[in-house]
Amino acid sequence: MSQQYTILFGGSSFEHEISVVSAITLKKVLEGKQLGFIFVSADREFYKIPADKMKSNHFSSGAYKKDAKLGLANGGFTTSGLFGSKRVDTGTIINLIHGGDGEDGKIAGMLTFYKIPFIGPRLEACAVSFNKELTKMYAQAVGVKMLDYQVIRRGEEASIRFDFPIILKPARLGSSIGVSIVKEASELDYALDVAFEFDTDIVVEPFVAGVHEYNLAGCFTGEWNYSIIENPQKEEFLDFDKKYLDFNRSEKPQDADLPEKTAEAMRDAFRKIYGTRFAGSLIRCDFFVIDDEVYLNEINPIPGSMANYLFADFTATMDALSRSLPKEQHIHIDYLYINKIQSSKGKVR
Amino acid sequence: MSQQYTILFGGSSFEHEISVVSAITLKKVLEGKQLGFIFVSADREFYKIPADKMKSNHFSSGAYKKDAKLGLANGGFTTSGLFGSKRVDTGTIINLIHGGDGEDGKIAGMLTFYKIPFIGPRLEACAVSFNKELTKMYAQAVGVKMLDYQVIRRGEEASIRFDFPIILKPARLGSSIGVSIVKEASELDYALDVAFEFDTDIVVEPFVAGVHEYNLAGCFTGEWNYSIIENPQKEEFLDFDKKYLDFNRSEKPQDADLPEKTAEAMRDAFRKIYGTRFAGSLIRCDFFVIDDEVYLNEINPIPGSMANYLFADFTATMDALSRSLPKEQHIHIDYLYINKIQSSKGKVR
Repeated sequence: MSQQYTILFGGSSFEHEISVVSAITLKKVLEGKQLGFIFVSADREFYKIPADKMKSNHFSSGAYKKDAKLGLANGGFTTSGLFGSKRVDTGTIINLIHGGDGEDGKIAGMLTFYKIPFIGPRLEACAVSFNKELTKMYAQAVGVKMLDYQVIRRGEEASIRFDFPIILKPARLGSSIGVSIVKEASELDYALDVAFEFDTDIVVEPFVAGVHEYNLAGCFTGEWNYSIIENPQKEEFLDFDKKYLDFNRSEKPQDADLPEKTAEAMRDAFRKIYGTRFAGSLIRCDFFVIDDEVYLNEINPIPGSMANYLFADFTATMDALSRSLPKEQHIHIDYLYINKIQSSKGKVR
Repeated sequence: MSQQYTILFGGSSFEHEISVVSAITLKKVLEGKQLGFIFVSADREFYKIPADKMKSNHFSSGAYKKDAKLGLANGGFTTSGLFGSKRVDTGTIINLIHGGDGEDGKIAGMLTFYKIPFIGPRLEACAVSFNKELTKMYAQAVGVKMLDYQVIRRGEEASIRFDFPIILKPARLGSSIGVSIVKEASELDYALDVAFEFDTDIVVEPFVAGVHEYNLAGCFTGEWNYSIIENPQKEEFLDFDKKYLDFNRSEKPQDADLPEKTAEAMRDAFRKIYGTRFAGSLIRCDFFVIDDEVYLNEINPIPGSMANYLFADFTATMDALSRSLPKEQHIHIDYLYINKIQSSKGKVR
């Protein structure tokens, strides 16, 4: 029987380990499907992982290095053997590489270039969601509110224009890595040092205490597929350890207790963000509600274990999505101009 | 003697033929360097082109198909033969794929993923320059003026909020493809049809007649390297044929006759746009001057034949750039979290 999905995970990313956990969780969730697994090692080699080896110590111990290495070429992944390279049957790839490589657009660019069908954000969608500064610009352009912000660049004087407390976030990282809440000016330098270890650009926002966060996932498959809206119970903010465990979730949460008007405003903001740009992906948007107004906090274009636990019928959603992946526009190249110049001017040869 | 540069050109792009001409021109300009050539065919196969075959009819006739096909893997391009694959000596890649594949971030993502040194915009820089809507947002964020605009999306009602004449541009194309100047409302539908053939999003701007355009190219190599500022003599706007010939330029133009204050304002805008985001690339910014104010028109992150004709010493500029390419941050993956969870909870296995 041919593969339906292949989960692509790992990557050269601060969220490499999260991706491993996420893939193991998704394997359980998609039980019953014909699944393949491709691991991207920290040094960016592709390995084909047998299903029975999808355990975290297979990766932490380095045992995966004995699995088959794969190449990437036009139309798919390949194994190379004595008699040339052979195409690997993958079905639809699920890009589950969180953070760098997966969410920054590299993998999307490669899979698109090589014409390999995949579920996940396309290159432009990655750019506007991976960099929090671009997300701010993008949300404004599509008419979705976000908190006010400023950007501090490495080497610049940090002149904060908000009252404390503030929150500092490296522009290009997810999973709360490098994030600090700064309660007073004396803590600022240390928090900046931490954040600048991860990025050259830091996004600064006023920190609003006690604000409720809501998570809404979904995708467009000819119609809008929404998850429930969850109000996750959180500490001040999730640190890496706690968020890490979050990627191992599969139990169903409760639908948040929200006025229907607010829930609809959230779905409306979701549709504006997703637009046509996020076609082919299942994303999770994290929102704040402040004074009954909906604010986007961030876009997770590859949420942990695909936010499966938020969907009533996750498998059906994935199947619908895999049937409605965006097609690349065909570009016909006829050398009309080169022929014209060759015949009329003989200039370009 | 090992290669110093390899020119990568072609691609699945509306500007495929322009890239071929651009590469042939750059070969002449970089005479004296050890050069390699890699062609990306319309169906996205890589071919190693011998220097003596760098003539336009080698591509338009399909003769390139007899040249060696290349693969792409960690660390570089490869040829495959009887005894496995062999690394091709390329030196620094010059990404000269104009338009799709080259300027949209796919090639940048692939070369970065595979750790291959290249001159050209990195992935995020591609995203903000390839899509004219994102350029508008980006310029605003870094404090550079552009003309007012609106975006019309395919399937939406087109309600134009500017007085005619207006100019319509497909959001994601360069070289004036699909661009129309619309002088009155009766011409609008046809111009929209043309533009929507190329893109789902159309950027609309007021058309300012008789405005002077100025081109300034440059790069950062530890210090700022600027070209002269050219005031190109143009028709109302360049159509594809005329712009095409432009990619074959190598003669030196005159420095534009501009007040020093305006020239400095233009270089200041250039620096703001380039920032750290365009590190590793040589870009050309096209500006308007209206009432002594400098407006960015567009960013060309891979200008035709690298805008060589604008530089006093182009070869020295390229050499300096190739010595100051941005380094990827090393990410150390230690499986600390997976090990911790394995030992303390036995939960994730």
